[in-house]
Amino acid sequence: MEQSKASALPRVVIIGGGFGGLSAAQALSKVPVRITLVDSRNHHLFQPLLYQVATAALSDSDIASPIRRILRKQKNVEVLLDQATAIDTARNRVILAAGELAFDYLIVATGATHSYFGHEDWERDAPGLKSIEDAIEIRRRFLVAYEAAEREPDSAAVPEWLTFVIVGGGPTGVELAGAIAEVSRMILAKDFRRINTRRARIVLIEGAPRLLPAMAPESSESARKQLESLGVEVITSAMVTAIDDFGVTYAGGNIPTRTVIWAAGVAASPLGKTLGATVDGAGRVIVKDDLSVPGAPNVFVIGDLASIKQPGGQPVPGLAPAAMQMGRHVARNLARATRGGTLEPFRYVDKGTLATIGRGAAVAEIGKLRLGGFVAWLAWLLIHIFYLIGFRNRVRVLAEWAWIYLRNESGSRLITGDVEPLLERGRRGDEDRHRMMAQ
Amino acid sequence: MEQSKASALPRVVIIGGGFGGLSAAQALSKVPVRITLVDSRNHHLFQPLLYQVATAALSDSDIASPIRRILRKQKNVEVLLDQATAIDTARNRVILAAGELAFDYLIVATGATHSYFGHEDWERDAPGLKSIEDAIEIRRRFLVAYEAAEREPDSAAVPEWLTFVIVGGGPTGVELAGAIAEVSRMILAKDFRRINTRRARIVLIEGAPRLLPAMAPESSESARKQLESLGVEVITSAMVTAIDDFGVTYAGGNIPTRTVIWAAGVAASPLGKTLGATVDGAGRVIVKDDLSVPGAPNVFVIGDLASIKQPGGQPVPGLAPAAMQMGRHVARNLARATRGGTLEPFRYVDKGTLATIGRGAAVAEIGKLRLGGFVAWLAWLLIHIFYLIGFRNRVRVLAEWAWIYLRNESGSRLITGDVEPLLERGRRGDEDRHRMMAQ
Repeated sequence: MEQSKASALPRVVIIGGGFGGLSAAQALSKVPVRITLVDSRNHHLFQPLLYQVATAALSDSDIASPIRRILRKQKNVEVLLDQATAIDTARNRVILAAGELAFDYLIVATGATHSYFGHEDWERDAPGLKSIEDAIEIRRRFLVAYEAAEREPDSAAVPEWLTFVIVGGGPTGVELAGAIAEVSRMILAKDFRRINTRRARIVLIEGAPRLLPAMAPESSESARKQLESLGVEVITSAMVTAIDDFGVTYAGGNIPTRTVIWAAGVAASPLGKTLGATVDGAGRVIVKDDLSVPGAPNVFVIGDLASIKQPGGQPVPGLAPAAMQMGRHVARNLARATRGGTLEPFRYVDKGTLATIGRGAAVAEIGKLRLGGFVAWLAWLLIHIFYLIGFRNRVRVLAEWAWIYLRNESGSRLITGDVEPLLERGRRGDEDRHRMMAQ
Repeated sequence: MEQSKASALPRVVIIGGGFGGLSAAQALSKVPVRITLVDSRNHHLFQPLLYQVATAALSDSDIASPIRRILRKQKNVEVLLDQATAIDTARNRVILAAGELAFDYLIVATGATHSYFGHEDWERDAPGLKSIEDAIEIRRRFLVAYEAAEREPDSAAVPEWLTFVIVGGGPTGVELAGAIAEVSRMILAKDFRRINTRRARIVLIEGAPRLLPAMAPESSESARKQLESLGVEVITSAMVTAIDDFGVTYAGGNIPTRTVIWAAGVAASPLGKTLGATVDGAGRVIVKDDLSVPGAPNVFVIGDLASIKQPGGQPVPGLAPAAMQMGRHVARNLARATRGGTLEPFRYVDKGTLATIGRGAAVAEIGKLRLGGFVAWLAWLLIHIFYLIGFRNRVRVLAEWAWIYLRNESGSRLITGDVEPLLERGRRGDEDRHRMMAQ
């Protein structure tokens, strides 16, 4: 009965449960449509705090919530765990691993992943940070490096274990470098007997002439100063040319290290290319001003996968607020469409940009305003707590941060998975496997 | 300087940072020895709550703490992340993956893992529960089963996805069965649209004639009643003969299911066999009454790896309290030895046995006392919070439990890792891969 009523309604399929897709679904709650949200993961991830999982400050479940729990009370949406492999715009079908899904309207919000600019072989030695699995792998390598240094009988090899190189000086790279410096200096020092973690060398390498190229020069300079005061070496205008077991090579030098993190390149989700529309250099779908795909007026692309310019000509940035605005905009347009109205163009409202560096250290740009240090950090903290989904997660994250701040202890320092292969990395073959570790 | 003083002290090596090894290290804090604690993991795991990670109630970092953080303030101990592969009692050396470690006294506390009684091929379809990784893998399969049922176009296949079989009716099996029943009935129901998770079938299979064979018959009967009131099917005196993608076969029947959890067998850590001493049927080292290894008076085995009888003749049980008592006993004996004293025999003090079944449901035996239901559960809860290591973890776990109890929401429902292979499990080849999932 309810089924028969429901089956008369337009079918909206949303691919992706990130900031864009989730905002679209929630903004459609009162609209007479049947929504199916498909994601290959069961959880929405609060990516802006992912670097804190990678640096052992937060636990994965603090920043991720099951999508179906978030949408539990919204009766016009169902959630499916599945992998969308292609989109057939001619037949209005999404091709999934387990079958096909028909739609009247489609919202594609599968975002972006990291790119190695054709050096995919670097991924083995320099993992990127996009998913929970990525964060746990980086945390594993980060924490194992100190363990390896502590047990290393060859004192000449210790500095390589205590050197951490982050490639890419965007927000993620800046956040990772600052967090790794703080954890090394403030949190781990008392836990080790043989090594001094305060001596850890943290290097941030950026190809452009300055950090945070998307922000203003003052912010870049402020970020550099704040990072250097935490003991981070900042190298700019340096293109990385090689990454292997033994270190990072860039035009102008080589850094011996066993731990490299990739925070440089971003590439759009490959699903965009299956739409048959034009994509930009990063693989983003060039959409019309109402975010629809040229030639497929019932198919919309939002978030990091969409390429759209602001009236001024500059691109809409690949940030969570932009994705959420796009999701809500498409939802409003679909509401109009169900009432026979016409679709309106998307306008991005820039609410400002933030990047955090460490406790009490950050940079913020709100309109013409440029903030640095504690004020910017406080703004960052409040905004992130506010946007974090779920009361429980807000409480847990605030409690964790208070704990770290007051006790200099970080929350989640688990090493999981098989560590021996990591511990053996960068080993020259010629060592005595039976040297004494303690006399 | 301090080094030279230190190097005069006896070297105590402890292998394993579980309840036994950690208790031994802590009890040696005031004894003039140099301690090296070696573990292949960086964390101490509170195993009694591991089933709550496997059933998505708690997050891994709630029940595991880095061993070096626990021992941070104890100056006479160092912690090494390494894998002990063998023990050379003749040369007083521990062979590690990264080298050798010399000792004057050795405490082996590497515990036990699960055993498939020669059916190791069952592990693929029926993972066991001993480590954080095991718990996350079981949580993955447990949660993916509901996702698979929700997206399953073939309604005949849904019941197989919503059937969960736990093999083994000891404490772990009883706890898992009760927790899975509660999560299915109370927590997941509102989150799904197509399936009714309240209809999930949970089956607990035990080979012996009753559950919890180590406890009194009244407790077994009480546990069975409490499980059945949660909707768990209890099958006893049933030996499992086959486990595969499609289900579980036992003498007397077959249960079609795609999700099986192994909670049946326990085998001692293989390290015990390298001591050259006699081992019992489960691979436990038969130790002397002071817990030393026959023929190696400076080598002690404690915890689940030790086989020792109480004066009455019954074996000391493989429980956390017994392991902690053994660790403290060996520490006291070493303190005596450093003062030239003699070693005293170990006496196990039985403080009682507990098994929890669900919220407000448990069984407890304290001396002659037999408790069931809410009182037993309250005892279980208080004791577990009390013994959980770290103020932070106590607060987090209590908060999680309060949240689950009050809100019927469970804490950590993340599915991580590659899910498609799991979703494809038990699929007969003959299906149309392009059937419609929604009309």
